[in-house]
Amino acid sequence: MTLIALDVMSGDLGAQECVPAALLALESDSSLRLQLVGQASVIAPLLDAAAPAAGVRDRLELIEASEIITMTDAPREAIRRKKQSSMRIAADLVHDGLAEGMVSAGNTGALTAISHFVLKCLPEVERAPIMTSIPNRRAFTQLLDVGANLRATPVQLRQFAIMGAIVARDVHGRERPRVGLLNIGEEETKGHDLVQEAHALLKDLRVAFEYVGFVEGQDIFSGEVDVVVTDGFTGNVALKTMEGVAGLIGDRLKREFTADLPSKLAGLAARPVLKRVSGSLDPRRYNGAIMVGLKHIVVKSHGSADRYAMAQAIAIAATAVRKQLVQHVSQALGSGDHSTC
Amino acid sequence: MTLIALDVMSGDLGAQECVPAALLALESDSSLRLQLVGQASVIAPLLDAAAPAAGVRDRLELIEASEIITMTDAPREAIRRKKQSSMRIAADLVHDGLAEGMVSAGNTGALTAISHFVLKCLPEVERAPIMTSIPNRRAFTQLLDVGANLRATPVQLRQFAIMGAIVARDVHGRERPRVGLLNIGEEETKGHDLVQEAHALLKDLRVAFEYVGFVEGQDIFSGEVDVVVTDGFTGNVALKTMEGVAGLIGDRLKREFTADLPSKLAGLAARPVLKRVSGSLDPRRYNGAIMVGLKHIVVKSHGSADRYAMAQAIAIAATAVRKQLVQHVSQALGSGDHSTC
Repeated sequence: MTLIALDVMSGDLGAQECVPAALLALESDSSLRLQLVGQASVIAPLLDAAAPAAGVRDRLELIEASEIITMTDAPREAIRRKKQSSMRIAADLVHDGLAEGMVSAGNTGALTAISHFVLKCLPEVERAPIMTSIPNRRAFTQLLDVGANLRATPVQLRQFAIMGAIVARDVHGRERPRVGLLNIGEEETKGHDLVQEAHALLKDLRVAFEYVGFVEGQDIFSGEVDVVVTDGFTGNVALKTMEGVAGLIGDRLKREFTADLPSKLAGLAARPVLKRVSGSLDPRRYNGAIMVGLKHIVVKSHGSADRYAMAQAIAIAATAVRKQLVQHVSQALGSGDHSTC
Repeated sequence: MTLIALDVMSGDLGAQECVPAALLALESDSSLRLQLVGQASVIAPLLDAAAPAAGVRDRLELIEASEIITMTDAPREAIRRKKQSSMRIAADLVHDGLAEGMVSAGNTGALTAISHFVLKCLPEVERAPIMTSIPNRRAFTQLLDVGANLRATPVQLRQFAIMGAIVARDVHGRERPRVGLLNIGEEETKGHDLVQEAHALLKDLRVAFEYVGFVEGQDIFSGEVDVVVTDGFTGNVALKTMEGVAGLIGDRLKREFTADLPSKLAGLAARPVLKRVSGSLDPRRYNGAIMVGLKHIVVKSHGSADRYAMAQAIAIAATAVRKQLVQHVSQALGSGDHSTC
């Protein structure tokens, strides 16, 4: 049995989506147990209404948490003042060994702060980045950091590269991951001092992954690299830009396929194909970003995730626990011998 | 007549695309004159082969430039050592009043350095950002900086906002532009010190544009804001990410519409609609990014621009000259009274 604590009060829709997400996750994974952390007065009626089968209901437990961390709470205040929040209590459960990992769709800054404060980074890891899967022309690119650390030093960027390569290898099955450093040009002369210094560190690293050098925004999607490394500000903007473009294109397709009768008829004919395309790119399929480099598994779900997307994030957390991701990162970084990663 | 100097040796394809682009631009605008700056030994045969009509040929002039700035030239070296480059001579022509503006598809770092060195910023402008149009759900968003200045101070970000609003108003006809500052969340508590300080400066500014506060990557495409302000590193990554996603989606559509016979038939039916969608989002239609805040007009074309895209960049330069963009920016910023912009 794998036991995950779920911050039920998190995300734009809170318990309304998180409770059904928990049930979906439990239904599709009979080796999973969940702790639903939040306000029992909110969660219990939703559970009663959903009336899950006994085999599902038996594998979930309610853990009372009276407070909620909102999207406007500053990270420091969240740590200091909201010790009874669902996010904090979920982290405490993991820290105390009562859960093996946690999932939250809440305030990224607060989750980062609480994860670092309660769960701590592995020795030799300075900051834990958030790493997410992005569809590319062949499979998926792992992009990190997408928002945990707004700035990153060259040493931290090097660590991100190593950790990204480990996740790409262990979780995503890339034997010798190709890793690129995000910049505004591929040429060695491009970029500011931070990326220049990180590039120098990575070039000198003797590793079992392949460092391909600088890559640009479009390379996230080319399939030529498996891991793209950047700071959390840039990565977050790239991630949300990607979502914005996809939304714009979907919008234009919808508009043009309903413009007139011939277009509508073409739309009917094209619908199965368009569904395959949008399905293959559906962000709900790859929701669930791992905060890598901590002593425990923390998965961040997109704030606007619906129940299906949230269930996917829970599944990612369970997989990371089962793959012993923390141990593998610890071995690779802790040994100081990066050739093992 | 509007006279523009064209860096013919620039871009991934150099003279091979720039010469036809010049001819296209001249054909579609009878009030335009062009100086083709580059190696006459390369340009002349291309011109001869194209055999333009006399009415077009009369409006172009060859200006010899023996050197070429490559994509790997460091900006400082480009200034110091390549004084006979096509990019530098184009800038010199503008500086000397022999041309009213210039267009280049070359090395962004070198173009930024040469523009600042030769053409200079307007008084009160610290750094000139590059500003480009991005399609959104309603019309176009102006995004700046997309790569001229890898870092930007809060004061510079405030200047970018004012300049962006002026271009949105004067060139793109937005009476009271809505301006947002790119961040990783819309809440006031989000972001690092730079965006926090810039936000404070912009909130305090009494202006004729509407500062809407922080926006996120997806808001570039929502149509809710007319101008999105950020530093050149982040903006460049956002721009190239956008291109990458659009390419990925195009790729998936092509793959799925050719997967089997029913899909191919659906593709035939859908082709006119898909062409309308891709046409409306075709980056060639909005190629040509203005480097705003200089004493003269400089337009940067995408490096991979083909002749049609490059012709569009030339048209943007001509429009900016005719709209007296430099004078308007100078008035708004130079007066110190930002309520006029």
